[in-house]
Amino acid sequence: MAGLKQVQRQTGVALWRQIADRIREAISSGAYDETGMVPPETVLALQFGVNRHTVRSALAALAQEGIVRAVQGRGTLIERKERLNFPITRRTRFTAGIGDQAREMRSLLLDEANEEASAEVARWLGLRQGEEVIRLETLRHADKRPVSKATSWFPAGRFAGIGEAYRKHESITKAFAELGLSDYIRATTEVTAAHANTADLTDLELTPGAILLIAKAMNTDLDGVPVQYSISRFAADRVQFTIEN
Amino acid sequence: MAGLKQVQRQTGVALWRQIADRIREAISSGAYDETGMVPPETVLALQFGVNRHTVRSALAALAQEGIVRAVQGRGTLIERKERLNFPITRRTRFTAGIGDQAREMRSLLLDEANEEASAEVARWLGLRQGEEVIRLETLRHADKRPVSKATSWFPAGRFAGIGEAYRKHESITKAFAELGLSDYIRATTEVTAAHANTADLTDLELTPGAILLIAKAMNTDLDGVPVQYSISRFAADRVQFTIEN
Repeated sequence: MAGLKQVQRQTGVALWRQIADRIREAISSGAYDETGMVPPETVLALQFGVNRHTVRSALAALAQEGIVRAVQGRGTLIERKERLNFPITRRTRFTAGIGDQAREMRSLLLDEANEEASAEVARWLGLRQGEEVIRLETLRHADKRPVSKATSWFPAGRFAGIGEAYRKHESITKAFAELGLSDYIRATTEVTAAHANTADLTDLELTPGAILLIAKAMNTDLDGVPVQYSISRFAADRVQFTIEN
Repeated sequence: MAGLKQVQRQTGVALWRQIADRIREAISSGAYDETGMVPPETVLALQFGVNRHTVRSALAALAQEGIVRAVQGRGTLIERKERLNFPITRRTRFTAGIGDQAREMRSLLLDEANEEASAEVARWLGLRQGEEVIRLETLRHADKRPVSKATSWFPAGRFAGIGEAYRKHESITKAFAELGLSDYIRATTEVTAAHANTADLTDLELTPGAILLIAKAMNTDLDGVPVQYSISRFAADRVQFTIEN
């Protein structure tokens, strides 16, 4: 656990945040798997060379993220170290992909608008810039925990009413089906990572400094015509992508 | 550009870092594409409601990462907004994958050791825990900029001498070929994201708070026998993964 000691002062990152990051890493690397618990505050304070107050702030942040839970008289339990696994394949479906790992999936439609395609959206959907598209803002929960926030664009002519259909079914797949598209294919996915912005922190219930996995994805119908372009922001602590070739 | 104004005080993240993150996001979203420049310090200071010193610290951090460059009398130029594109396919090859986007690729062998397979390494390579594996620590540069740091494990019996071969060829593909494996397949890739640790900051020349894309990957020979398991840490500002289905 030598890595645990490497806390740098004066880097512009608060000590408690650096320590929260180190503990998060240690949890996900399995360092505490034997006990299922984070070491006592006094032990962590010694390891990191900081006072217990700083350790407590770090643990409080991790507790807020749902990674650990303080239990009176027992210490700090590790709540959840496994990420939800999100497979990226030709058959990628959000609900089906995550569904078998969660008891309850919810998808909220936060916002819906008709707008003119930006250069980026037009490029992905094979439209001309300024053509009409429908934009949906959605938020997905697995077992009441927010997993991802997505902005999706659809060609407006072909998919009029998709917002209403999504609100009813809480599923893009079912909304497409209702509008006559019975099957579709995940054609391209671009994956990057970034810091959560202020809106992400609220919507995804994250603490400052949290990281997102960002997937820009394009789906087509079976003839290869683009039907959806989306930018999904996943809490990186809660999800991993898997690509099987 | 409303998002630019959302700087939170007292979040545990230094103001200059938050501002560096916002400017980084604005650059990668194309907000400054028309001018190819970051707005003047005085404008940014007003936008963020901070003093010029704080803006300057943010720009200095971005300059250190190679994202912007201050030019005497002209302002702050955007150096590089495009990420290297790293395709993840059955035919994933690091050098070939990145190679056509860079003039010069280098791969350094930082460390090499024979060791006993951990439970994780054994699981991925289809070995028994404790069986002998060769571990290589490598660092890849594109156009003199560090792109990724990887730890790779190989079955020791089959790939004795792979360290030496890698040092000579600076390529896993060529090292495999020298040892009699003329072709291989990327079978599985798991993608997560995390904060850079202290060693990453040094090796990848990043500033504190930087984010990594992490790929755990398993390659097999044409018979499906695992030949390599690797954990690669990519500077998220410099690379994106692309999956085409």
